[in-house]
Amino acid sequence: MVKLVLLRHGESTANFANIYTGWNDVELTAKGREQAQAAGLLLKGVIDFEPTHIHTSLLQRAIITANIVAEICDFLYLPITKTWRLNERHYGQLRGLNKDFSRTVFGEEQVKKWRRGFYAIPPAGAQVNDRRYHGYDQHLLPRAESLYQTQKRLLPYYESQIYRRLIKGEDQLVVAHGSSLRALIKKIEQIDDNKIINLEVPNAQPIVYTFDGQLEIVKKEILR
Amino acid sequence: MVKLVLLRHGESTANFANIYTGWNDVELTAKGREQAQAAGLLLKGVIDFEPTHIHTSLLQRAIITANIVAEICDFLYLPITKTWRLNERHYGQLRGLNKDFSRTVFGEEQVKKWRRGFYAIPPAGAQVNDRRYHGYDQHLLPRAESLYQTQKRLLPYYESQIYRRLIKGEDQLVVAHGSSLRALIKKIEQIDDNKIINLEVPNAQPIVYTFDGQLEIVKKEILR
Repeated sequence: MVKLVLLRHGESTANFANIYTGWNDVELTAKGREQAQAAGLLLKGVIDFEPTHIHTSLLQRAIITANIVAEICDFLYLPITKTWRLNERHYGQLRGLNKDFSRTVFGEEQVKKWRRGFYAIPPAGAQVNDRRYHGYDQHLLPRAESLYQTQKRLLPYYESQIYRRLIKGEDQLVVAHGSSLRALIKKIEQIDDNKIINLEVPNAQPIVYTFDGQLEIVKKEILR
Repeated sequence: MVKLVLLRHGESTANFANIYTGWNDVELTAKGREQAQAAGLLLKGVIDFEPTHIHTSLLQRAIITANIVAEICDFLYLPITKTWRLNERHYGQLRGLNKDFSRTVFGEEQVKKWRRGFYAIPPAGAQVNDRRYHGYDQHLLPRAESLYQTQKRLLPYYESQIYRRLIKGEDQLVVAHGSSLRALIKKIEQIDDNKIINLEVPNAQPIVYTFDGQLEIVKKEILR
C-alpha cells in the first residue's frame, strides 16, 4: 500500500474576488493560511502517511500552503520540488478578469466553452516574462491552455517524479491548483473528457489516494 | 560581481535556554520568527541580490528562517536544497545540556577545549536515528564533531552546489547555523585554526559577500 495526497492551496485573493488567475502569482488570504493550517492538521491525522517528497508549483499560493502543511506535519526536512508543470492552467487573456465580467466581454457561450470544454483554449496572452521562468525553454511555456494542454505538460512531471516514487512504495504529497489537480485526477481516475470539467477541487481539502502495489486505487478519501 | 549571503537562523528555544543543541530539531521562538522577518526585510534592500538557489540544513530552525526570508524577498519560487551537510555541528553527549551545567559535569577546562579548539571532539552520542536521515549512508553521519569535522563534511556540498554556481555568476543564499556557518566562513575568508572559534555569527544577521569573477572577496557586509 502506498499513499498519494493531492492538496489544492488555501483561499487566494483571486479566489476571494472571483477572478481568473492562472499564472498570476496572487497571495493567500488570511483565511487561506488558516485553511492551510487546518489541512495540515487533517493530514497529520492520516496514519502511515510518510511522504518522501513534496511537489508543488512555482506560485506562492501553493508553495506557502505546502510550507504551512510541512511545518505542522513535521515534513519540513523533506525535499521539495517546485515546477511550472504543476502551475495552474494558463488562462491566457482571461487572467486578471472577473469571471462574471468575462461573460460580458466574450459572451456567455464562449466563456462556458473555455471553462467546461476539455480541449477549448482561451485567447493567448503575452509571452510569460518573469525571472522565475527564465531558466526554462521559453518555447515550452504556454500563453494560454486548455485543460487538455495543462494535463499534457503536467504528465511528464507526474510520470518521472511522482509515479516512479509511488511505484517504489514511497508516499508523495502534491500541493497545487484547482485545474492542474483536476488534470491530474483525470489521469489517476481515468475520468472521461466530458466529465472531468465538472469535478470541483475545493481549497485546502486533502485528497488521499491509497494504491496497491500496481498502483490501482484501493481507497479515495477527501479530508474535511 | 556575484553575491553570497550567509544567514544564521533566528533565535531558537535552545538559544534562549543556553543549551547545546546541534542536531536536536528545536523550534524557533516567537522572537526568532520576528528576527527572520527582519532579516528578510534587510535582504530585500540589497540591490542586485538575485539568488538562483537557496541552501539550508535538515533542521527546522534553519528551514523556517529560509521560508520566512523567501516569502518576504519573493524568493519562494527558487529551488531550495536541504542537506545534513549544512546542519549545525554535532555536539555528541553535550547536546541537550545547559552550557553552564556542562562545565559542572565535564569540568571548565575540558568544555573550553571542546568549544574553542578547532580539532577537539566532544564525547560521541548515540547513532542518529531519525527518519530524516534514513536516506543517507549511516557511516557518513556523525555522532560528535569537532569544528574541523563539521567543515570537512560541509565543504563537499559547498564546492559542488554553492561554489560552482557562484563561479558561473549566480548569487546564492545559505541559511544555516552558528558553527556550520563559522566553518564555512573559515574557508571563505581563510581564517587561522586558532582564530576562527572566536568568530561569533549572530542570529538572523545576513552576511553579504561580494566576490569578483575569481571569487576573491571585494566586500563583506553584515546587515543589522
